[in-house]
Amino acid sequence: MTINTKVNAAILIIGNEILSGRTQDTNTSTLALWLNSIGVKVGEVRVIPDIEKKIIDSVNLLKTTYDYVFTTGGIGPTHDDITAETISKTFGLKYEIHKEAYQILESYYKPGEFNEGRQKMVWMPRNAKLILNPTSGAPGFNVENVFCLPGVPSILKSMLGGLKNKIVGGRPILSHTVSLRTVESEISKSLTDVQDNNKDIEIGSYPFFQAGKLGVSIVIRSEDQSKIKECVSQVLEFVNEKKIEIVER
Amino acid sequence: MTINTKVNAAILIIGNEILSGRTQDTNTSTLALWLNSIGVKVGEVRVIPDIEKKIIDSVNLLKTTYDYVFTTGGIGPTHDDITAETISKTFGLKYEIHKEAYQILESYYKPGEFNEGRQKMVWMPRNAKLILNPTSGAPGFNVENVFCLPGVPSILKSMLGGLKNKIVGGRPILSHTVSLRTVESEISKSLTDVQDNNKDIEIGSYPFFQAGKLGVSIVIRSEDQSKIKECVSQVLEFVNEKKIEIVER
Repeated sequence: MTINTKVNAAILIIGNEILSGRTQDTNTSTLALWLNSIGVKVGEVRVIPDIEKKIIDSVNLLKTTYDYVFTTGGIGPTHDDITAETISKTFGLKYEIHKEAYQILESYYKPGEFNEGRQKMVWMPRNAKLILNPTSGAPGFNVENVFCLPGVPSILKSMLGGLKNKIVGGRPILSHTVSLRTVESEISKSLTDVQDNNKDIEIGSYPFFQAGKLGVSIVIRSEDQSKIKECVSQVLEFVNEKKIEIVER
Repeated sequence: MTINTKVNAAILIIGNEILSGRTQDTNTSTLALWLNSIGVKVGEVRVIPDIEKKIIDSVNLLKTTYDYVFTTGGIGPTHDDITAETISKTFGLKYEIHKEAYQILESYYKPGEFNEGRQKMVWMPRNAKLILNPTSGAPGFNVENVFCLPGVPSILKSMLGGLKNKIVGGRPILSHTVSLRTVESEISKSLTDVQDNNKDIEIGSYPFFQAGKLGVSIVIRSEDQSKIKECVSQVLEFVNEKKIEIVER
């Protein structure tokens, strides 16, 4: 069962370094948690290489399928940073110097430091709207519903505050976790019954290993706190019947 | 620039817990590093929810686009584990008890412990080939070029050894990293020149923060060690000219 929220988003991670396994992506989790908190559900994530055609095809598909698209990566100063130029092509917009971004970086750097490499970061699709960057100056941008953010996790995180007034979410998606000292196969039948009784609630079951012990976290998600509460009580009912130890509730 | 290896793969992460941000995916990185080491390049990763239609559509597309598809997640005993049944539908195969898997789990568990929940894990597409699981018994499986693995990272890792003889890779993809005490904008122009001179080499540039200091890692990837060596020497040439401190070479 999956919650049908009214507002959804896709995340497009652009970067060979994730596909090669060299870098562990953490931006998906950062963005997804933040989007959930403002009532936007992530419906899909794609990780693709720094290849123009792949980016254009993916953005074209995702921007018409989802309310919002967030891209990460490829907006720095080096040759493998092709996101801004590619987004320009995707939308048929001129790729040019963004005056406001230019002014921001010109005053951000000391005199003489705003060199050719750094100037690449103010080239954007015409009339792109800026997403301010309190960490390292160079802004992200959005064109319509496509929001382009950097790949460096700490910089991306610092830009979420400035994004908030640009995204209109629905009701926040709430969740409650019940962690048990058991294995999935001991509770799978009872949990299926609870899911069948609560068809509009998303119930996930996730095994964990902690301090050498096995356990299962049951995660209950909905926009409706009272439905979550009712669902939790149904879970606790079979947990108590089976005399399963509760680790977290 | 992206390496065109002859053998490629897609990874399909199936799981609401990744899309909600609750769980940080690490399987992509584990699989990608391992695949690279046996000469298989990951061309794309998708993360999708536990929804039958999404799984079927994604698998159908990816299995014809890539040489191999690896799915993770959804093969446990609970109601949200729908991968095996969905893969059966994708290939038009009967979803049934897999005799060999049944025998494995029957002897894995103590007498009386192989209960209904656990028995769900031996339901698979007819004639699926098993991928043995040395950690927790329940096997993964493959149908043609689609390999279905569990979502729990430690279990997935332990199953890679048993996968090796099922995957025919190309030449391993080699990489070399040069880390510099600089910022990207200082080297972007020189690095572009090196990339232009070495069009069949993949050169990535990745800023890092370590012990409070900024740096940039240049990652050079190719199947050909001598080409990597030549490319590294071209990088070191401009690094020395610019008197940039080398952190790692």
